[in-house]
Amino acid sequence: MNEVIEKLVDLIDKDLQNDIYKPEERKEIADKYKKLLPENMIVLAQANPISGNVKYNALKAQKWIEWANLLSLKAVIFPEMFLIGYPIGDFIDRFPIVVEECNEWLEALAKLSGKTKIIIGFAEFNKEKKGKNYYNSVAVLADGKIETIVRKSLLPTYAEFNDYRHFEPSDVNSSSRITSIGSKRAGIVVCEDGWNDFDFFDKNLYSTDPVEVLVKEQSPDFIINCSASITRAKKEQLKHNMLSFAARKHNTPIVYVNQVGSGECLSFEGASRVYDENGRLIAMAKSYEEQFFIVDLDDKNGLIYPLPKGLEKTLNSQKAFSLDHEPDLERTYKTIAQSIRDYFKKTGFKRAVLGLSGGLDSTICAVLLADALGAHNVFGVSMPSRITSAESKNDAKTLADNLGINFIEVPIKDMFDVTRGKFDALFSEMNDKWNCRYKNSYTNDNIQARARATILWGVANEFESCLSIATSDKSEVYMGYATINGDMSGGFAPIADVTKTKLFALAKWLNENRDVKNAIPASIIEKRPGAELAINPKTGKPLLAEEALMPYEFLDEVIWRVENLHQSINDMINVEFLYEKKASVSKEQKQEWLEKFFRRMSFAVYKWSILPPAPIVDARSINNREYRHPIIASGINYKKTTPEEKLELLKRYLCI
Amino acid sequence: MNEVIEKLVDLIDKDLQNDIYKPEERKEIADKYKKLLPENMIVLAQANPISGNVKYNALKAQKWIEWANLLSLKAVIFPEMFLIGYPIGDFIDRFPIVVEECNEWLEALAKLSGKTKIIIGFAEFNKEKKGKNYYNSVAVLADGKIETIVRKSLLPTYAEFNDYRHFEPSDVNSSSRITSIGSKRAGIVVCEDGWNDFDFFDKNLYSTDPVEVLVKEQSPDFIINCSASITRAKKEQLKHNMLSFAARKHNTPIVYVNQVGSGECLSFEGASRVYDENGRLIAMAKSYEEQFFIVDLDDKNGLIYPLPKGLEKTLNSQKAFSLDHEPDLERTYKTIAQSIRDYFKKTGFKRAVLGLSGGLDSTICAVLLADALGAHNVFGVSMPSRITSAESKNDAKTLADNLGINFIEVPIKDMFDVTRGKFDALFSEMNDKWNCRYKNSYTNDNIQARARATILWGVANEFESCLSIATSDKSEVYMGYATINGDMSGGFAPIADVTKTKLFALAKWLNENRDVKNAIPASIIEKRPGAELAINPKTGKPLLAEEALMPYEFLDEVIWRVENLHQSINDMINVEFLYEKKASVSKEQKQEWLEKFFRRMSFAVYKWSILPPAPIVDARSINNREYRHPIIASGINYKKTTPEEKLELLKRYLCI
Repeated sequence: MNEVIEKLVDLIDKDLQNDIYKPEERKEIADKYKKLLPENMIVLAQANPISGNVKYNALKAQKWIEWANLLSLKAVIFPEMFLIGYPIGDFIDRFPIVVEECNEWLEALAKLSGKTKIIIGFAEFNKEKKGKNYYNSVAVLADGKIETIVRKSLLPTYAEFNDYRHFEPSDVNSSSRITSIGSKRAGIVVCEDGWNDFDFFDKNLYSTDPVEVLVKEQSPDFIINCSASITRAKKEQLKHNMLSFAARKHNTPIVYVNQVGSGECLSFEGASRVYDENGRLIAMAKSYEEQFFIVDLDDKNGLIYPLPKGLEKTLNSQKAFSLDHEPDLERTYKTIAQSIRDYFKKTGFKRAVLGLSGGLDSTICAVLLADALGAHNVFGVSMPSRITSAESKNDAKTLADNLGINFIEVPIKDMFDVTRGKFDALFSEMNDKWNCRYKNSYTNDNIQARARATILWGVANEFESCLSIATSDKSEVYMGYATINGDMSGGFAPIADVTKTKLFALAKWLNENRDVKNAIPASIIEKRPGAELAINPKTGKPLLAEEALMPYEFLDEVIWRVENLHQSINDMINVEFLYEKKASVSKEQKQEWLEKFFRRMSFAVYKWSILPPAPIVDARSINNREYRHPIIASGINYKKTTPEEKLELLKRYLCI
Repeated sequence: MNEVIEKLVDLIDKDLQNDIYKPEERKEIADKYKKLLPENMIVLAQANPISGNVKYNALKAQKWIEWANLLSLKAVIFPEMFLIGYPIGDFIDRFPIVVEECNEWLEALAKLSGKTKIIIGFAEFNKEKKGKNYYNSVAVLADGKIETIVRKSLLPTYAEFNDYRHFEPSDVNSSSRITSIGSKRAGIVVCEDGWNDFDFFDKNLYSTDPVEVLVKEQSPDFIINCSASITRAKKEQLKHNMLSFAARKHNTPIVYVNQVGSGECLSFEGASRVYDENGRLIAMAKSYEEQFFIVDLDDKNGLIYPLPKGLEKTLNSQKAFSLDHEPDLERTYKTIAQSIRDYFKKTGFKRAVLGLSGGLDSTICAVLLADALGAHNVFGVSMPSRITSAESKNDAKTLADNLGINFIEVPIKDMFDVTRGKFDALFSEMNDKWNCRYKNSYTNDNIQARARATILWGVANEFESCLSIATSDKSEVYMGYATINGDMSGGFAPIADVTKTKLFALAKWLNENRDVKNAIPASIIEKRPGAELAINPKTGKPLLAEEALMPYEFLDEVIWRVENLHQSINDMINVEFLYEKKASVSKEQKQEWLEKFFRRMSFAVYKWSILPPAPIVDARSINNREYRHPIIASGINYKKTTPEEKLELLKRYLCI
């Protein structure tokens, strides 16, 4: 049976993507397959909506619905908020017309509905005089009508989620959650409603478990969870364990329908699935692809598409930092590639221009862009300055050739010279008034970075549908080691949530796993990173990033400890870092690096606030769609002071 | 009595700002005044904290506490979240050390507390196994101990508020809200807890009113509301009406203590106050200044400092757009000046550099910066290009002279020429590969804007504690009429929430109301705005902004209707705009402008996401600390389609 289903799913997926068949052909195909399929089939509509573009989403839904109808499937189930498109922005409050349109499209879909039940997420008006304006709801449509509406109870409002900004929580009314599907009774919950099991989690965010209430009061034959849940390092294993646990605990199968595709910074990996009443995974859709995923709830051995590496089994490592990034590289690659593809598609761009320095960051960006947009849509620009080495220039050219992307060299020496000449006169005159020039400023470094950005944005201004790319990586963004209006500037920042040590691993992985092997020259992977913006007076060579900052292996572990363990300086000073196992680091040196980290981070917060949109990839990030740090909060003390020191300071003001 | 209090308050305020007195002098002064004061006095500690800088906040609190102690006042009452500093960021989740420090400082303050009760906002750990990690709490400290803790129940999570991201709502337990102050029983609520009266509001966000519960169950002698409530156009009258209404309704005086000062984009105006049981305002602190505001609850005619114009009586106009901005100009001026001052102080900057074009935007920014930072800390740079008129150059120079700020001229012709020369060769070679050059691009316009930003950031890189300023205004940011890495770029954007028509009014107001009259040359106010980046081929003169966009009076009304009435194109087409009363506008022209507005706005959303921090001033804004619009949500349809059109579109895919 799986072979039949797989063939059918493939055929429909191709039609959904490319409109291959004429209406009568679809009917013919459906009639042929219908006879081969068991009675009680449903389809998980793992689809990719566009935030706010209700018409696009409705017309897409209709395609899936029509196929489900033609095949006489019992139900077609869409993800959370599908009609209005996740992620939701504040636009639903400022422009209620979007929600009005959403509800009218829902009614139109309902009017055309037939025997196949349509289960679809949408934003519903709250007509009560109390509470927020909207509910996060799922409608069940059938026989030309809206049969029932299920409202989300638990509203995630942390990290990338802002549900309580817009939605009123629904009381846990279990009877409205029930609908019949074929001969079975299904109970519906919405995403977070399924994430509050009191036995599974040590700490719970909410005081009720809608799944437990639903099972206790209604004993449904199975549970449907309509979700929009983003991929993150190490999240899949947690999700699997939790869903499996809940199915087993409640002795009830769970059908989990997840969104796929990326919306700005958030990436949904799909991988919709079914667990049986024993918690066993019995069917799973593809990851990172739309899919018309047909499922027979009674078949304990349904189709299971494999998860990319990085989605399986990584929870165990959650509590320890590792420099072995390999297990997460395929997921990382697919997440960023999908993000680029969808960001360009959903904003109407087609082409990308980026600076190719011959360094690691721009190299990885170029590979990802070439794979996501097609090599002919990518232009790499080498913009050497006086400090740029011949090796870097050659590496950039070789890379471009290997990838088949367009390439051009534009030296910036003259732009630098004219700006620098201007500055000499300007600064000396200004100093008469201000008399506070830095002895060692970053002015020269930044002139180069800004001249390059001026060229790239010029290209983006001059050519149709072209976006310039910011190549900053996570380790350097953390440290503010990026130039405003320079390398940090662009329409999209593909790797701003990938640390440097992971980028090195990713480079090797790309060389081994892409169709064209070894596209990245070995010298790019082997050389130590540096911005090539300044000369280190001690070595006479271009300043290396690790000389300006600290060893990347150390830096990346600090970042990991901050994001995952919320550690302060005091916490970190007393644990052994991986880097310390292989290099001798004095206690003073370690203290100095830690202090430097938090000092630089405090000043980098401004840069975080103007970082271009970037895919969230890691377990936690500083992307401001997830993490918001007021710029004025630069005086946080990341070291503990003792109660005695506090009392002492307070007493200084007393008249005692 | 008011005279005595006023003198004492002035004297203490000066000491709090400048540490004028020695400990023994303070004691002496206090002893002298103590005899003159009535028995039951309290002080509203209208103070300015720094977000996350707990040490700074605790030491500041201690100064106020000490004066209250010396004067034997019954209580010193601080605003909401004072110890940790509002606005709260996600740092309290990522760096729990901040909350640990906050609680340890609280305990230290408690240890040193005496007879004067200290009522102070802080972030409290939630030690339960369920719910968010923290409570938004107010502690009552006295006699060396924490006497009681009041937790906020209603958690605003909309616009600039994100309370539910961090805090667990407290059930409305009224008994814990009570403390004795002198011979009276006070009931404490926290900010939003006081904003849900069912009789006052037509629509309520929450289903309980903590004030009503408190009064019913505990009958306190008066209510204390510890707040951190930001200023916005037209909010003061609402606040006054609501607090007065609640005091009258419950026949209970209300003491309202508000934060003062600005935190990043949010500005708190102070104006702490007391209403008697008849809802009459009986005392009010200054606006936009820290104040040690002593209050005698039994005195029906306490000190009332006047509100600046713009804080009084503007609610009535909330439902209609007006081009008469005069009533809101003093508030606008004070809000932005405070924002600049506090942003610089709290981030450690001292000096500002900005481009002076001789146009309205940079002119207003220069005046505000000079007033906020001192003229000697401001450098205006005139950076003429080939298109810049002699008049603009002269105006910039005259303005700088009038303000007494530093001034220098740096022509950018050579920077433009070298970049343009580079582009000619580059683009023609690139076009062989891409063949999609725009016929009319903005490339030349943007080269100029970016050369200027390169100069300004160069200055900021070269001189100590210097920040470059983005001069974009609200009308133009809405339309994306600002250059990325150009005029839109800077460390702070003072007027990004002020529309162009309001800026014209503000210019006149500044000329009339500043000490130095008419600092802004009349020609700057009289000429029609234009970026002077391109020539209009029709006129042969520099392209005017209104030629590129639409009349500002029309544009600003569209913005107002979007932000305040949430109107769509359909809503606006049928109402008469103020601009239509004075100029003839065809229906087609109006439709075209409206479509252009929404089309340009959709593309401008990316620019909003990288806008530098800017003070929120208006009733509503697009500041991303308040309003978040996913960049990919560019396909929103701002026009209604009919249900019939929707059905028609959906049917196209059906096999019928």
